[in-house]
Amino acid sequence: MTPATPAYEDDNVFAKILKGEIPSEKLFEDDVAVAIMDVMPQSKGHCLVVPKAPSRNLLDASDETLEAVMPRVARLARAAKEAFSADGVRVAQFNEEPAGQTVFHLHFHVIPMYRGVELKRHAFGDVPMETIKEHAEAIRAALAKG
Amino acid sequence: MTPATPAYEDDNVFAKILKGEIPSEKLFEDDVAVAIMDVMPQSKGHCLVVPKAPSRNLLDASDETLEAVMPRVARLARAAKEAFSADGVRVAQFNEEPAGQTVFHLHFHVIPMYRGVELKRHAFGDVPMETIKEHAEAIRAALAKG
Repeated sequence: MTPATPAYEDDNVFAKILKGEIPSEKLFEDDVAVAIMDVMPQSKGHCLVVPKAPSRNLLDASDETLEAVMPRVARLARAAKEAFSADGVRVAQFNEEPAGQTVFHLHFHVIPMYRGVELKRHAFGDVPMETIKEHAEAIRAALAKG
Repeated sequence: MTPATPAYEDDNVFAKILKGEIPSEKLFEDDVAVAIMDVMPQSKGHCLVVPKAPSRNLLDASDETLEAVMPRVARLARAAKEAFSADGVRVAQFNEEPAGQTVFHLHFHVIPMYRGVELKRHAFGDVPMETIKEHAEAIRAALAKG
């Protein structure tokens, strides 16, 4: 038996973004989710879909949340690929710290992939915010076309 | 502009598994999807959810397919974590070859993660089929409990 998934705590950075307490580079927002840039991008255009419903990760998420979020992940994946003429896209979702989860509010990584380019480390400050804002603008333009 | 997603081709290995032309180590099956062991496991218990509806990947999948599949991915993630007392679970989904996609039928990787254990390469023959069958049995038992 593994221990149950720990309870959700609402002091995480994505909860604060959802409450408007912390700024983010927003790509779209609707009743289900917000899409934002990852400020520690592993590739050009790395972004996130964060459902509004509180859950720690996939392990405690409701079916309703999961059903609603996935078409939005796909929409963002298509737009990010288009925005940067990327060669592919990875979608990644981490559950608990040994799996790579660092923020304990369910989120999906959308990572554009470029032929011959390795993923960077997931670290803050490697890419200037000005660059991240430019990439956000490119994704917003692709979303508007799509 | 990136080129459109190539058309789905039904001669891929997952299409053949869905048609029963190739054997697989099945974990569950319903009208929406089949869950099977990955025969090139990157960790103990690495398994896959394969929607029955034909699409190449997330980029051309219908919203209906994506909505239906995600609760099944979560169900398998919970069972795989439980079966092996894993410390976490990664969910990964690759779109196009530069992103790591090797079979061009939409699928979701469910990869149990263990503290201090690195992921193995994704290669056939590294883990004996007998071991994979044992792991399948453990996941089926966890699914039956859940």
